[in-house]
Amino acid sequence: MKEEILRLLRSADGYISGQELCNRFRVSRTAVWKAINQLKEAGYEIEAQQNKGYRLMAAPDLMTEAEIKSLMHTDWVAKEVLYFDTIDSTNIKAQELAEKGYPSGTLVVADKQESGKGRRGRSWVSPSGTGIFMTLMIKPDINPNNASMLTLVAALAVAKAITSVTGEEALIKWPNDIVVNGKKVCGILTEMNAQFDYINHIVVGIGINVHNESFPEEISQMASSLMIEAGGKRFHRAQIIAETMSYFEQYYDTFLKTQDLSALVREYDELLVNRNKSVRVLDPKEPFDGKAMGITPKGELIVDTWESRKLVSSGEVSVRGIYGYV
Amino acid sequence: MKEEILRLLRSADGYISGQELCNRFRVSRTAVWKAINQLKEAGYEIEAQQNKGYRLMAAPDLMTEAEIKSLMHTDWVAKEVLYFDTIDSTNIKAQELAEKGYPSGTLVVADKQESGKGRRGRSWVSPSGTGIFMTLMIKPDINPNNASMLTLVAALAVAKAITSVTGEEALIKWPNDIVVNGKKVCGILTEMNAQFDYINHIVVGIGINVHNESFPEEISQMASSLMIEAGGKRFHRAQIIAETMSYFEQYYDTFLKTQDLSALVREYDELLVNRNKSVRVLDPKEPFDGKAMGITPKGELIVDTWESRKLVSSGEVSVRGIYGYV
Repeated sequence: MKEEILRLLRSADGYISGQELCNRFRVSRTAVWKAINQLKEAGYEIEAQQNKGYRLMAAPDLMTEAEIKSLMHTDWVAKEVLYFDTIDSTNIKAQELAEKGYPSGTLVVADKQESGKGRRGRSWVSPSGTGIFMTLMIKPDINPNNASMLTLVAALAVAKAITSVTGEEALIKWPNDIVVNGKKVCGILTEMNAQFDYINHIVVGIGINVHNESFPEEISQMASSLMIEAGGKRFHRAQIIAETMSYFEQYYDTFLKTQDLSALVREYDELLVNRNKSVRVLDPKEPFDGKAMGITPKGELIVDTWESRKLVSSGEVSVRGIYGYV
Repeated sequence: MKEEILRLLRSADGYISGQELCNRFRVSRTAVWKAINQLKEAGYEIEAQQNKGYRLMAAPDLMTEAEIKSLMHTDWVAKEVLYFDTIDSTNIKAQELAEKGYPSGTLVVADKQESGKGRRGRSWVSPSGTGIFMTLMIKPDINPNNASMLTLVAALAVAKAITSVTGEEALIKWPNDIVVNGKKVCGILTEMNAQFDYINHIVVGIGINVHNESFPEEISQMASSLMIEAGGKRFHRAQIIAETMSYFEQYYDTFLKTQDLSALVREYDELLVNRNKSVRVLDPKEPFDGKAMGITPKGELIVDTWESRKLVSSGEVSVRGIYGYV
């Protein structure tokens, strides 16, 4: 009910009367009053005016189930939201929930990760209050060979959501890092659990630097937060989450129709930070330089060298802008 | 120490003196006597003769860590063995252990599974006392695209181990079912947890019907146990496990050298139950009949139809002998 009250307060043009809330949820005045009080205790500023009703003045930067759901407009993504103040890793938790039978679309969110996972066994720094650490679990009925494209679908969704909420231009460093002003603000770690021909589940872990004030010297040239790039402005994390989920659902449903990115190539390419720029492809066999042209419908990066056009597969190689990210 | 005492008793040609055991483990007579008593309590028949020492007369059909390890001769496979009387699923437990940092080669064994996993979300009947339910967890540094071949490596190991312990000819129904006298006695469920370009871990779940006395009507034409096929003879399950692990280590190390099955094709083909026989390939697009010729170094099944040679990829299709399994 709290989530629905929040949703109503948000969508209301002015006040909502207590009586209206009672009718809507078929509960007593006391029950409504209790729920409103719980919301106040959680940090929501709710004004109560006699004869007018309730009005939401300000919402705290929470990522609770009620807060996220009250902002969400999806059909099936994140219908189940689990929030944790502290967790080992949202990816690990999401995989556990998948095994326990939680439905496709379950979202795990944490304010802090104690052993956040990065790529190839590396860790992801995840302190409290600064970021969004979330994992979306899905159980797609697709060929496992097509699953790696989902990480590009997720990148597209996050970039669009960040731009929509912050107004800052978020671009994609192929395949799935999000950069603002040339600095990385988000990493995505997609992990698959499969029987080779059959996907048990996929977890898409998304870590976004939102309110970090600074970064360690070693990475400060490469990493940043939305707040730093927006000149100190703070953002509502639940709103970024809700927007990401909306975009993901939309792009994912498009992806499913063809099980490839053919209908998303154009939108992805428009956000590709390296597009039409020189890149160095750190192919373990032989590094080479070229110009990034865009992606194929399978999600490969098209790189034109002086002698030929090459397709770079996700993960096999690392791509660098010749001067840092751009 | 119990595992080492068992190993010594097994390898001894006659008796081993208490003094020798004391010296070997640098412990007191009392400590040796205690360990021997614990083994007796666990069901081992150990004869103690004054002036001669101890002799192992009979071992119970246990799959405990000590019993399995005392029979094992591997370098790295199953150096860590976890035994459970009852478990939900050995595959799930092995995946949990992988996340917790257990080393590659960890083996989980259970006498009974409460929700044993079969392929594509199906279940695997796993009652107590009748079977071997085990999962080997590995963390291979190979390309995820090559990982599906491991299930053929496992099939080869199980077939060899069953033949070696029971004397019955165990063959392989491509890709990874084991059949004796044309009936399935073992299923293998391999699951991978990966970051697309990087394997977190792979679990190879192996279920062997050992002492089942009968099967439900619906599957009795297709399924059997080692005991039924060996005319009522009982087997020592830990020995089958130990043999399987030895063969797996050997074949896996061969596989790793080329990351394909090129050096194992011949041995695999010799055990292929459908080889040179007519098969029906239940391709979801269009089923077709042909003759199974063997496997490719990538693990595909080579099927010659009247018009062309086709390569069948694991999992995409189901292959049936025109008359049941053979």
